[in-house]
Amino acid sequence: MRIAQVSPLIESCPPKLYGGTERIVHFLTEELVRQGHEVTLFASGDSCTAAELVSCVPKALRLVDRAGDHLPHHLAMIEQVRRRLDDFDIIHFHIDLLQLPVVQGWDTPTVTTLHGRLDLPGLEDCYRAFADVPLVSISDKQRLPLPPINWAATIYHGLPAQLLPFNAEGGDYLVFLGRISPEKRPDRAIEIAVRSGKSLKMAAKVDHADRAYWEQHIRPMVEAHDNIEFIGEVDEAGKAELVGNAGALLFPIDWPEPFGLVMIEAMSCGTPVIAWRNGSVPEVIDDGISGRIVDSMDAAVAAVDEVLAFSRAVIRSRFDARFTAARMARDYTGIYQKLVDEGARHRRASVAEFPVDAAPTAARLVSGTYETAA
Amino acid sequence: MRIAQVSPLIESCPPKLYGGTERIVHFLTEELVRQGHEVTLFASGDSCTAAELVSCVPKALRLVDRAGDHLPHHLAMIEQVRRRLDDFDIIHFHIDLLQLPVVQGWDTPTVTTLHGRLDLPGLEDCYRAFADVPLVSISDKQRLPLPPINWAATIYHGLPAQLLPFNAEGGDYLVFLGRISPEKRPDRAIEIAVRSGKSLKMAAKVDHADRAYWEQHIRPMVEAHDNIEFIGEVDEAGKAELVGNAGALLFPIDWPEPFGLVMIEAMSCGTPVIAWRNGSVPEVIDDGISGRIVDSMDAAVAAVDEVLAFSRAVIRSRFDARFTAARMARDYTGIYQKLVDEGARHRRASVAEFPVDAAPTAARLVSGTYETAA
Repeated sequence: MRIAQVSPLIESCPPKLYGGTERIVHFLTEELVRQGHEVTLFASGDSCTAAELVSCVPKALRLVDRAGDHLPHHLAMIEQVRRRLDDFDIIHFHIDLLQLPVVQGWDTPTVTTLHGRLDLPGLEDCYRAFADVPLVSISDKQRLPLPPINWAATIYHGLPAQLLPFNAEGGDYLVFLGRISPEKRPDRAIEIAVRSGKSLKMAAKVDHADRAYWEQHIRPMVEAHDNIEFIGEVDEAGKAELVGNAGALLFPIDWPEPFGLVMIEAMSCGTPVIAWRNGSVPEVIDDGISGRIVDSMDAAVAAVDEVLAFSRAVIRSRFDARFTAARMARDYTGIYQKLVDEGARHRRASVAEFPVDAAPTAARLVSGTYETAA
Repeated sequence: MRIAQVSPLIESCPPKLYGGTERIVHFLTEELVRQGHEVTLFASGDSCTAAELVSCVPKALRLVDRAGDHLPHHLAMIEQVRRRLDDFDIIHFHIDLLQLPVVQGWDTPTVTTLHGRLDLPGLEDCYRAFADVPLVSISDKQRLPLPPINWAATIYHGLPAQLLPFNAEGGDYLVFLGRISPEKRPDRAIEIAVRSGKSLKMAAKVDHADRAYWEQHIRPMVEAHDNIEFIGEVDEAGKAELVGNAGALLFPIDWPEPFGLVMIEAMSCGTPVIAWRNGSVPEVIDDGISGRIVDSMDAAVAAVDEVLAFSRAVIRSRFDARFTAARMARDYTGIYQKLVDEGARHRRASVAEFPVDAAPTAARLVSGTYETAA
């Protein structure tokens, strides 16, 4: 299949710094190439890919001193895609909303994966306005804040199978991975470690916005306990070692996590997860197999010794069955094919249905009336 | 003519607080109605208009506590416009860039007035990508940072003739009106007053971003001189009195002002302007008639007594000739008609040129190749 992947331009593919969306676009793109598809990646020019790269800005915007507003760069990228519409069977967007008003006029089918949380002001009315644009959610739970719109599928993220190798032994310490921010609840992670008498390694970045939270709340907790170790950010190799050698990953979140990549990173290593029941967690963790889903601090503390006894090989087998990049790419190509087939049917119907001077695009322009939200 | 005006949703039309763009959209919309056109205004629901109002959000976004990102609201507005394309002869956008990738596919002609500065990163590539979308600049100087693109016209802003009444007498004090920010150079205004021995009234708001500049630089200067009076923000009535009774307006800017509404507000009162040669200034001020254009502090100080002797009636006559809302609306309807005629010609050509199953939209989709900036 001839597939276009349209990435945010904020980080490169793969990202040089943190960049969840671009990381997934990278994994998906490389795996689609590996599976024999003809893939074109619209991304920042400092990206690295086996696909054809269309450079939409010379350098990832987050690395440019005076990048200004990101909007014009992304609009120009949409135009670059449009000028090559005939080169693709399907176009896959990863840039949230911006293309929604544009793609309605295109004959080439598109699909948009929504990578973020969807309970923010204004989103409901916007998605309702474009209710026929095909969307993919990254968990079923992620969809809840939105009205009934054109969900093509939920497709869970996946990682290259060898990215974070299976570690059959593991270890005895707990690990917390991600950002130091209130919704990630690093304070809960520390309390679990303190109450269960385990040591905790925290590999986390502190964003500028979370500086005060770190200084006032978390750093004092870290410094008050000998069994808590803060080690800052880690790279991919450091992560494999840190998570692979851990006894369990703590994921005590307090927000509607749309997916939570760190859970499947742990599973890839064979490391069980103790996670709060929130957002995507019940969809990602097989409770009692790859981890424990808890609702309280007591339950979390009680789960520590329990998950240390879980079979790490079984956890890895759950990862292999559900969360590899190969599975993710197969799921997406299934959706791509479905949309391509529907598009072909729609075009045949249009030719039969519309008189000579009204093309399908023109017909769609006048369909329906706008419904504002109550 | 059946005209759609598409306003930003940040302020209402007219704005309850500061909002330069929405204020112009308001003046233009009401004047077009007065001139007998059938006008539809897409704006926030708390707007007030003689046109048909299409409420795109219930309340101006700047007045909503938790409005979140403005983007989804504006995308949904574009979709509301699209669903009514057949109701309009022309659609006039005032929301900068967001509609550029969308309007290419429309049969109804559009025009976009660019209200802001255009020397910001990323804009050049973006406008180059949409080089055939008709644009209006609000001064010739405003265009300079952009490559050759489809400029339909420069149309200067205009005000309702009676908004700021002519004051034949004026007075002896100087006035500074606008924002306290480094590029507006309130420090220069104070220095002109001090050196010329005149009193200066400063009616200006202090944005949150400019708080430190006010506290550290400007407030001490204000407090050090008895002849400098700071009176904060003024409303429309207060402005008429303050500017009408002034001897001259000081506009000592240090940035590429795209238009500078305050200059024509002064002219409406018959009050001359002393302005630094920057941005639109030489296009708006008739040097030696409606004010003095200067390049230095010495020239500005020397100009004070000179402009006090200018004929206020002549200044007002320059306003009446060049900067009324009626003139602005006539200029715009001229452009609207030109674009409508071109669209009709283009559609006739398309019908002749293209075979049965290729509508003009589809034909335009594949035209040209994308040129990246050198």
